[in-house]
Amino acid sequence: MSVEQIARAARDAAAELAPLTRAAKDAALLALADALVEATETVLAANRRDVQRGRTEGLSETMLDRLALSAERVAAMADGLRDVAALPDPIGEVIRGYRLPNGLQVRQIRVPLGVVAIIYEARPNVTVDAAGLTLKSGNAVLLRGSSSARESNAALVEVLATAAEKAGLPAATIQLVPADSRDTVTELLHARGLVDVVIPRGGAGLIRHVVENAVVPVIETGVGNCHIYVDKAADHDMAEAITVNAKTSRPSVCNAAETLLVHRDLAEEFLPRILTALQAAGVTVHGDETIAAYDGVIPATDEDWAEEYLSLDMAVAVVDSIEAAEAHIRRWGTGHTEAIITESQSAAQHFVSHVDSAAVMVNASTRFTDGGEFGFGAEIGISTQKLHARGPMGLPELTSTTYVVTGDGHVR
Amino acid sequence: MSVEQIARAARDAAAELAPLTRAAKDAALLALADALVEATETVLAANRRDVQRGRTEGLSETMLDRLALSAERVAAMADGLRDVAALPDPIGEVIRGYRLPNGLQVRQIRVPLGVVAIIYEARPNVTVDAAGLTLKSGNAVLLRGSSSARESNAALVEVLATAAEKAGLPAATIQLVPADSRDTVTELLHARGLVDVVIPRGGAGLIRHVVENAVVPVIETGVGNCHIYVDKAADHDMAEAITVNAKTSRPSVCNAAETLLVHRDLAEEFLPRILTALQAAGVTVHGDETIAAYDGVIPATDEDWAEEYLSLDMAVAVVDSIEAAEAHIRRWGTGHTEAIITESQSAAQHFVSHVDSAAVMVNASTRFTDGGEFGFGAEIGISTQKLHARGPMGLPELTSTTYVVTGDGHVR
Repeated sequence: MSVEQIARAARDAAAELAPLTRAAKDAALLALADALVEATETVLAANRRDVQRGRTEGLSETMLDRLALSAERVAAMADGLRDVAALPDPIGEVIRGYRLPNGLQVRQIRVPLGVVAIIYEARPNVTVDAAGLTLKSGNAVLLRGSSSARESNAALVEVLATAAEKAGLPAATIQLVPADSRDTVTELLHARGLVDVVIPRGGAGLIRHVVENAVVPVIETGVGNCHIYVDKAADHDMAEAITVNAKTSRPSVCNAAETLLVHRDLAEEFLPRILTALQAAGVTVHGDETIAAYDGVIPATDEDWAEEYLSLDMAVAVVDSIEAAEAHIRRWGTGHTEAIITESQSAAQHFVSHVDSAAVMVNASTRFTDGGEFGFGAEIGISTQKLHARGPMGLPELTSTTYVVTGDGHVR
Repeated sequence: MSVEQIARAARDAAAELAPLTRAAKDAALLALADALVEATETVLAANRRDVQRGRTEGLSETMLDRLALSAERVAAMADGLRDVAALPDPIGEVIRGYRLPNGLQVRQIRVPLGVVAIIYEARPNVTVDAAGLTLKSGNAVLLRGSSSARESNAALVEVLATAAEKAGLPAATIQLVPADSRDTVTELLHARGLVDVVIPRGGAGLIRHVVENAVVPVIETGVGNCHIYVDKAADHDMAEAITVNAKTSRPSVCNAAETLLVHRDLAEEFLPRILTALQAAGVTVHGDETIAAYDGVIPATDEDWAEEYLSLDMAVAVVDSIEAAEAHIRRWGTGHTEAIITESQSAAQHFVSHVDSAAVMVNASTRFTDGGEFGFGAEIGISTQKLHARGPMGLPELTSTTYVVTGDGHVR
């Protein structure tokens, strides 16, 4: 089937999915979970072929680790589907409702987006997570994974789609878009009128490619050059603990901190201890002129301020004021998450109202920007754009709304 | 200045506008209104030059009428600014707020989008409306009007921008993008990182051009192939009154009805009276096989089902069931507004849950899909896409959100 045919089938499926009850969707999700566990061996066999091929083709060990599945990982994916079944159904929620002076009843009601396309890189668990979240929110999904995971993804989608059909859902509820050529991405990005949104999940290159080439609406996700600003009124212990946590607890994720900005007033006292603590945790520090004077610090260039390292590297600069910190963030940030460490209420308020990011942390680690941490129960990605959804996206972010207006023969 | 320089200035202005208080914004809006009234003569002189040139270049009378300003129209624009000042400020509204199990306080707060670009056709009043709504919502605005209104728009923006600066706002709060070449549209559409959203307002051609060429996020507006479905359980008088109103009260606007679908069970009784009523109101009827048998009806082709006439024309078809009506709408509709006329509760519910449009009317005219009618106080356009905003867009639709997370040294 061509991508257009696949998308048309999804469009038709979406029309059937929109009016489904929560009970029908939850029953299907539980059936999907059971089918997945039952098919563990088939999935693992397909995954071994992907890993084998990846090794031959020279994939890095990190990539291979992301790609590799185990019986435990399959069971965890199934549990993820069961968790999604337990979440409230966003569809049908009345967001606003009121009566107009002329007696018309207006209700704004959550409805599915329709057809959601996800374009993603190596991890096969995204296949299952995305299928679960889109099903629960009443959407048809088009899954375009990476070619390195193509056998795993094909096996997973085969299991999920078959189980969905058995549970009474349309056959085209969950579909894989072939990963055999880049053209299938291009076709997805141009399927105007068939695809309601494309969500890219992956590195900066993938996201840029999608944004620059899409004719259908896109939600940008994930690039996080996150900053920590240590204000002159910061508690030094707290500043150290949060900085080390935000940088080192999981450096490869988008909510890890990449740049530390330190107010000049506490630089002399705070810098020696934070640099020591970072270096003791294995972090390579890239510093501005002041900081480069310390042992083991590499002088930073503009590229360091712009970089999302995703590694045990951190750029560190001294700033003269909170305004200078905010200006640095405006210039170099990606609008993901920034944190201020301060005991000053007015500094916290200034930072919150002058920093324009999806999330702003006051005396907390940047690592908390996460759907799970925010209590959403699940996450389809973290939006770094301002339209539609900003920050962690859960089920309500996979919906649109309709105005239902009820009258009694009303005319204008 | 290049478009990029203009957009950069807007970006800087946006950073200053975001933290402004409602009092400061409202005072500025009232100052803009006064300045506009004071500059009436200058604006009208510029407008006369546009009208003169339009006449020479052969603009249609309809276009010239849209273009032409009068002292009354200028006064009405100024009143529009005062009305916007009276509306509540969307910025700072806490949309969600809760405490996580670990004690972190999470608040989701409305913030401005940042830089909003509007690309629009002839009417100069859009210049003032858009400037008022974007200012109130704390955004910087880039206005790219049509070249046919260039002198009017330049005069209006000069007045508004000067008054805004006098009121203490950044000089780049309200800026005109030169309309001297199509290139300025292209540059706007590619200003990624500088422009947060482009909203095209105009005909289908403009909207398609913007959607197909934009790298920045877009909100599609306005194309409305709106349907009325007269169910077998309809009240005939109501069906006639709503159909005639929806088609003829203002045929040139996007919420006017374009297609009438009549259930076969009442066709024999209802068709003669509705066709007579429409024709008496000056409507040319384009009908399917059944309807083409009536006097004065032009046989319809597929183009008629797809067409947004924006004129006193209406396509009329007989359908065998409510499902057939819904399928017709799915195939040919543009997702703007559809209406069902019925006394049956179950038919109304079926229609509402199976039709996927920005607005669904039950026993009311399609003409009610409008920000003013919905009680929004103002409207920047009617979104026909599903992301971010759907249906009439008021002030909240010109905002994004930020998560503000407050802790006490929280780490993961």
